[in-house]
Amino acid sequence: MRKHITGFSNPTVKYLRSLRDKKHRKRSGQFLVEGLRLLEDARASGRMPRTLVMAEGREHPLLERLEADVMATGGEVIATTPDILSKITGKENAQSVAGVFDEWDTSLAALDRNAAPIWLAAQALRDPGNLGTMLRTCDAVGAGGLILIDDCADPFSAEAVRASMGAVFTVGLAQARWDDFLPWLRAGEGQLVAASLRDAVPYRGAAYQAPCFILVGNESQGLPEEYEMACNLRVTMPMKGRADSLNAAVAGAVLAYEVLAGLEG
Amino acid sequence: MRKHITGFSNPTVKYLRSLRDKKHRKRSGQFLVEGLRLLEDARASGRMPRTLVMAEGREHPLLERLEADVMATGGEVIATTPDILSKITGKENAQSVAGVFDEWDTSLAALDRNAAPIWLAAQALRDPGNLGTMLRTCDAVGAGGLILIDDCADPFSAEAVRASMGAVFTVGLAQARWDDFLPWLRAGEGQLVAASLRDAVPYRGAAYQAPCFILVGNESQGLPEEYEMACNLRVTMPMKGRADSLNAAVAGAVLAYEVLAGLEG
Repeated sequence: MRKHITGFSNPTVKYLRSLRDKKHRKRSGQFLVEGLRLLEDARASGRMPRTLVMAEGREHPLLERLEADVMATGGEVIATTPDILSKITGKENAQSVAGVFDEWDTSLAALDRNAAPIWLAAQALRDPGNLGTMLRTCDAVGAGGLILIDDCADPFSAEAVRASMGAVFTVGLAQARWDDFLPWLRAGEGQLVAASLRDAVPYRGAAYQAPCFILVGNESQGLPEEYEMACNLRVTMPMKGRADSLNAAVAGAVLAYEVLAGLEG
Repeated sequence: MRKHITGFSNPTVKYLRSLRDKKHRKRSGQFLVEGLRLLEDARASGRMPRTLVMAEGREHPLLERLEADVMATGGEVIATTPDILSKITGKENAQSVAGVFDEWDTSLAALDRNAAPIWLAAQALRDPGNLGTMLRTCDAVGAGGLILIDDCADPFSAEAVRASMGAVFTVGLAQARWDDFLPWLRAGEGQLVAASLRDAVPYRGAAYQAPCFILVGNESQGLPEEYEMACNLRVTMPMKGRADSLNAAVAGAVLAYEVLAGLEG
């Protein structure tokens, strides 16, 4: 049964709005996803929202199916006005629907490194758009997922989820400090690779080995030297211009496609 | 001589603030660039601001040199408070300096296609971050520049300039409608290449030829079929996952690095 909310000051509205802030997401362990397309991606991946918030008067066959499925899995469905949904999502042109999901286990222990030949890892990645783009790249290259090292942007922010084009639901995701990541990595198979100018070989045709972990550094600082030196392989990419670096998500993707070609070649 | 501005309601402050809006940039033909680093990039590329706006009390040797150079080239230097500079740039933590530049000629006629083996082109690219990232990639792969086709984000927006990491000043930039771009391209040498699923060959090791124009489509629609079919070469990139596309700037970069390897190989 739908619950109807018509008041802007309703406590549920206030709670849903609060999920736009990382602090509140961390406290509640929940995050908000906007739009039918992303919710369909989630459903296709077996992730159902705990709560579905629908704008009344925006009927759609997929939305009806989603509503039925949310109810069938014990979730709550809230119907409200488009204006209140806009207030919740903070978007002027609201999507017709949003869903509240429980965050899931993002510990390294939850990853199976042998499930895929390629993994992306990012250290101190600050831009949620870059983070989401890297998740999307993981999907494209068949990577197992993205490992976020040290203090990164929140993968459950609206911007990261949107930039991932739903890949946040389909690829693996872990968060760890470097001091936990490195022992985890060394406790099993795994080649750690970074783009670097230090003691590096050309990225093209380098000796990549699965499972290959491609490590990308912070947008403005790059990787700490200590992290680079802990890598099994350092590779250089051509830099023909004035600058000596690429956008972090771009660098990760160019490397990931090269690794894919190398492993499959 | 520095001009001092201490009032928030000063008309110059109002004008500088207005440059955050595309509408006002187009009307005035000027744009605003924030931060010493970008201004240094501009200077290194021979682009000097018409007006330099400095926050008083944030002295820096590079800033002094920049101020002297702006004056030497007939520009104006405005000293103001950090708060007013924040108001101008719309950033809570203001940079210590901002500069106003004249936009420059972005007609196709201003490009020399033989100046570089690779060019990037984007059609209806809406995200200024993607646009700036593509400019940055142009710099990295030694591309001549970026050609913006149809209605794209504004390359002179603060976000695009920032994402370009200064490449907006160093690589070529053109804006054109498709109906003008295609005749221009066909009037000289040039291979037009797009990532596509239609009648395409693997992107890896395809027969790229300089000058190679890599065409990337809109973030959500991709390229119109007509545009794809006008290409000399359509290539596919592996898509191992659930989705069938990459972020536009990522796709452009992966292709650009492959073209670079192919042309140099």
